[in-house]
Amino acid sequence: MISLKNYPLLQDIDSPADLRRLPKELLKPLAAELREFLTHTVSISGGHFSAGLGTVELTVALHYVFDTPSDQLVWDVGHQAYPHKILTGRKDRMTTIRTRDGICAFPNRAESEYDAFGVGHSSTSISAALGMAIASRLKGENKQMVAIIGDGSITGGMAFEAMNHAGSLDANLLVILNDNDMSISPNVGAMNNYLTKILSSKLYSSMREESKKVLSSMPSVWELARKTEEHMKGMIVPGTLFEELGFNYIGPIDGHDLDMLVSTLDNLKRISGPRFLHIVTKKGKGYPPAEKDPLAYHGVPAFDPAKDCLPKSAPSPHPTYTQVFGSWLCDMAAQDSRLLGITPAMREGSGLVEFSQRFPERYFDVAIAEQHAVTLAAGQACQGAKPVVAIYSTFLQRAYDQLIHDVVLQNLDVLFALDRAGLVGPDGPTHAGSFDYSYMRCLPNMLIMAPADENECRQMLTTGFLHPGPASVRYPRGKGPGVAIEPALTGLPIGKAQIRHEGGRIAVLAFGSMVAPAEEAGKQLGATVVNMRFVKPMDESLILELAKSHDVLVTVEENVIAGGAGSGVNDFLQAQRILMPVLNIGLPDAFIEQGTREELLALCGLDPAGIKAAIEQFCA
Amino acid sequence: MISLKNYPLLQDIDSPADLRRLPKELLKPLAAELREFLTHTVSISGGHFSAGLGTVELTVALHYVFDTPSDQLVWDVGHQAYPHKILTGRKDRMTTIRTRDGICAFPNRAESEYDAFGVGHSSTSISAALGMAIASRLKGENKQMVAIIGDGSITGGMAFEAMNHAGSLDANLLVILNDNDMSISPNVGAMNNYLTKILSSKLYSSMREESKKVLSSMPSVWELARKTEEHMKGMIVPGTLFEELGFNYIGPIDGHDLDMLVSTLDNLKRISGPRFLHIVTKKGKGYPPAEKDPLAYHGVPAFDPAKDCLPKSAPSPHPTYTQVFGSWLCDMAAQDSRLLGITPAMREGSGLVEFSQRFPERYFDVAIAEQHAVTLAAGQACQGAKPVVAIYSTFLQRAYDQLIHDVVLQNLDVLFALDRAGLVGPDGPTHAGSFDYSYMRCLPNMLIMAPADENECRQMLTTGFLHPGPASVRYPRGKGPGVAIEPALTGLPIGKAQIRHEGGRIAVLAFGSMVAPAEEAGKQLGATVVNMRFVKPMDESLILELAKSHDVLVTVEENVIAGGAGSGVNDFLQAQRILMPVLNIGLPDAFIEQGTREELLALCGLDPAGIKAAIEQFCA
Repeated sequence: MISLKNYPLLQDIDSPADLRRLPKELLKPLAAELREFLTHTVSISGGHFSAGLGTVELTVALHYVFDTPSDQLVWDVGHQAYPHKILTGRKDRMTTIRTRDGICAFPNRAESEYDAFGVGHSSTSISAALGMAIASRLKGENKQMVAIIGDGSITGGMAFEAMNHAGSLDANLLVILNDNDMSISPNVGAMNNYLTKILSSKLYSSMREESKKVLSSMPSVWELARKTEEHMKGMIVPGTLFEELGFNYIGPIDGHDLDMLVSTLDNLKRISGPRFLHIVTKKGKGYPPAEKDPLAYHGVPAFDPAKDCLPKSAPSPHPTYTQVFGSWLCDMAAQDSRLLGITPAMREGSGLVEFSQRFPERYFDVAIAEQHAVTLAAGQACQGAKPVVAIYSTFLQRAYDQLIHDVVLQNLDVLFALDRAGLVGPDGPTHAGSFDYSYMRCLPNMLIMAPADENECRQMLTTGFLHPGPASVRYPRGKGPGVAIEPALTGLPIGKAQIRHEGGRIAVLAFGSMVAPAEEAGKQLGATVVNMRFVKPMDESLILELAKSHDVLVTVEENVIAGGAGSGVNDFLQAQRILMPVLNIGLPDAFIEQGTREELLALCGLDPAGIKAAIEQFCA
Repeated sequence: MISLKNYPLLQDIDSPADLRRLPKELLKPLAAELREFLTHTVSISGGHFSAGLGTVELTVALHYVFDTPSDQLVWDVGHQAYPHKILTGRKDRMTTIRTRDGICAFPNRAESEYDAFGVGHSSTSISAALGMAIASRLKGENKQMVAIIGDGSITGGMAFEAMNHAGSLDANLLVILNDNDMSISPNVGAMNNYLTKILSSKLYSSMREESKKVLSSMPSVWELARKTEEHMKGMIVPGTLFEELGFNYIGPIDGHDLDMLVSTLDNLKRISGPRFLHIVTKKGKGYPPAEKDPLAYHGVPAFDPAKDCLPKSAPSPHPTYTQVFGSWLCDMAAQDSRLLGITPAMREGSGLVEFSQRFPERYFDVAIAEQHAVTLAAGQACQGAKPVVAIYSTFLQRAYDQLIHDVVLQNLDVLFALDRAGLVGPDGPTHAGSFDYSYMRCLPNMLIMAPADENECRQMLTTGFLHPGPASVRYPRGKGPGVAIEPALTGLPIGKAQIRHEGGRIAVLAFGSMVAPAEEAGKQLGATVVNMRFVKPMDESLILELAKSHDVLVTVEENVIAGGAGSGVNDFLQAQRILMPVLNIGLPDAFIEQGTREELLALCGLDPAGIKAAIEQFCA
């Protein structure tokens, strides 16, 4: 545990009530301590860092002004909520963040009454806070609900849906846009620069030029436009967009000026109805290396805060699956000009950096907009392109209808590269990709593949790309077994599994990430081990053969059992009227908390020992 | 087939190329014929009517100005696309619309090269058209892509995501907002009224009043605001919101003025980049009864166009499932003030009219915004409310991530009333609810119920409402068997099935809408028939008993087999090491085209005869 003696103010803050007892003039020193404490703990635990540095003053001001937890704060995504956790009774446990049985990576209702809403995925905060405001108001309460959302998250469609709704109601909702794309000094000049940026934008200029051209053919409209052009400078003032959605817009103000934050929030608290406060902060604020490179310091390993760089990770001969995908994408793009690459704001996480640099014309970062990403791909496919959507398994959930209605129903040629499938480790259940076999297997036309190793990942990506219809390759976070990768771009025969080990009595049918541990377990048991490769269509003829030549089948997958790959084996056997015992090993019907990926797989019995034990027990 | 002799211009239009050969002065008479022909054919076939009446001029203008199908039109949702179908070679088959083997209800790529993108669900058009524009441009083409979207559909978050992306690109995209919420006369006065409406809105006024209050504490911002207030009238001009998203905005113009439409589109065609044309049309335009009541004429049965009203449907002693839900909602709301009702813009379709009138404070139409609807409910539940989300099965697909991440993961108390589950008939595969058992059964914490009849629907809604966690009741389109409905609000024991008929050898486990046909088939076969009631948790003890006392189990459900209810039975038996033959009857692994619900159920073998035949074949 960290000694708190260097944090004389913070050490006595066990809850926001303690904070609210401080005289106002001590808030700035407290914020300084909070920033230092955050740096100290994250340097020990690792975790999300830049975003929290940027919200130190905001967090102090919010808990100072609002009566939390009666008033409620909903932090969108939650990367920025470490300071909030520190001030709400969790400072002693901050170094356990993201570890098994430790503090969660994100706000979590089960962890604290100050965590009003569990988050992790983007753009949910306005909907949730609005729902709270409505329900609270109907109970006759006069609570304040606050959503804090970043300039990235606000591009998600559901944030717009929520604002569109909120703007038509009287609910006690305050939305705070934490705009950290740029810095702001607390003087009018800098604010003017900000306005100038809007005024001088390419789109604004071209709009004016081309409007004239078009409008000239419509006299009455043209007349109106000519008149209003005088007002153009007045028209493009910040926040117009939010005002048109019915919000009372204030801003932009400096999100590191505690005095201004406190007085502004204090004023906003006294107003009812939907209010929108635009603050400008700096990611990484106050810790120079993070200010210089906020992206590198977004999520960090443990580091030495006295040094001005992060520890280099040891060079590895084996790439991650993300890197395998990134290399494949570039190689395939070089060979086929029809390939287009799409990411919903996950260029780094999905391995698209090199592709974006080498093929900028064919690279599409659509912002946090998974729904649009998928239907954009569908549209591209209609014109003969071959789009590849790089997306985390957990985020494809947000484009499920677009997958069904726009891609699969029309049998369009889109490849989905599903990263972070299965358990993801420290990020916990919000980010786990535990359901994709189930939610994709029920869809007609869908090709579903899961690689056993890096080389197969490359082959499957090629297979899916060449297949003229919807296809997916799902692979886990981190590294595979570390096999050599053949440079050729060759596909695999569709629906064909691979026997890894010939044995007797027991046949283990393993899928994707579970092939390696199942192989280890199966060999020890003298079982046949099969790398199934395809979840849909499955290698039915091989299953029939194995059923004939073995007494027991075992399926192993990193997906919930309900509706998953093993469930598909059960269904097929019943359809074939083959009665034989099948042991289905997979994720349980529960949300799995955080830990390392290895810890969690072992916990779920998905390591070699667990698989072996389960088979032995079944066959006993 | 309709005689075309009364349509001298239209009869020679077999494709848009024929249209483009007409001299401009014949477009108005053609539009008049088109409107009359639309009225004529829909009066015979029934179908979507008001929306098409409103887009007659727009459709003529679009195909006249643009080089379809090289240039492409994407009609959002597609209710308004009947005139488009008539002009693109399908006029002879219009009376077959929505029937088996007839013309589809919506644009469909398989039906015509003029149907650029299959639609049905809302708000996809901008994403799709942008994708086409990007891919086409990359091939070196100079095609025009046009998305036509209504003022309802544009509230869907993905439309915003698409505009946010499009506004930052140079793609050849034209978005046409078909605003039919109000009428517009082609004079400046009416346009001024439109502007006045924006200027005089409550929100605008309150913003000005309250801004002053807040801003007065921030001198520099206040100074800026005071200056810009002079420009306020200039600021709120139409389209500012779209301009801020990077579009070149033109409008609003009268969408029934063909000359203006043609010249405006002709000008817009010559401009590149993202353009936004705002047109104002009248739903039902040109057919007085539909103009008077566009909602009643939105979707119509066959009618006599000479009469000024639609045929009354014969009074029925039996309510639809939708009506059962609507009555239950009012009764439960009267009893429990915590109940809140949410609909994503489907007040009529989901049976919420009476509730909205009796409980306006607790009724939330959130617009076409399924994602927001579900997370709003999650937020409400966090404050102790008991929200009920009324949503079609097919539309819950659009809120799948919100269901998982915001409701189920947090185990929040939200009830989902899933209407139109299973096959929906004339609307075809875009609207079928074929996957909900599969996509919900894989989720932890989820209670899934399916009623066999109206009374049970009411009981299950009560059960789900009383259950303190996520629950769903899924029921089909139309009517059930017509049983008496008990007025009491009593729940059912969770996870308990009901034996409907005791028999031997074969036990039929039927789910929801399939209980009645399975009972009929099962009785004929002397089988035991069980109404399973719960898909999750299943009545496992009863399954164990039945497995002991019968030779064969048969599962029957109106969901795809993969991952569905029967798949759950298979998984459970395997987990229990019970080896016995199970026949899984359900929807096939394919998208089912349109027809009547009865035709389609029979086609899939889900009528009594089909179920009986399948069992007989299996047991032969």
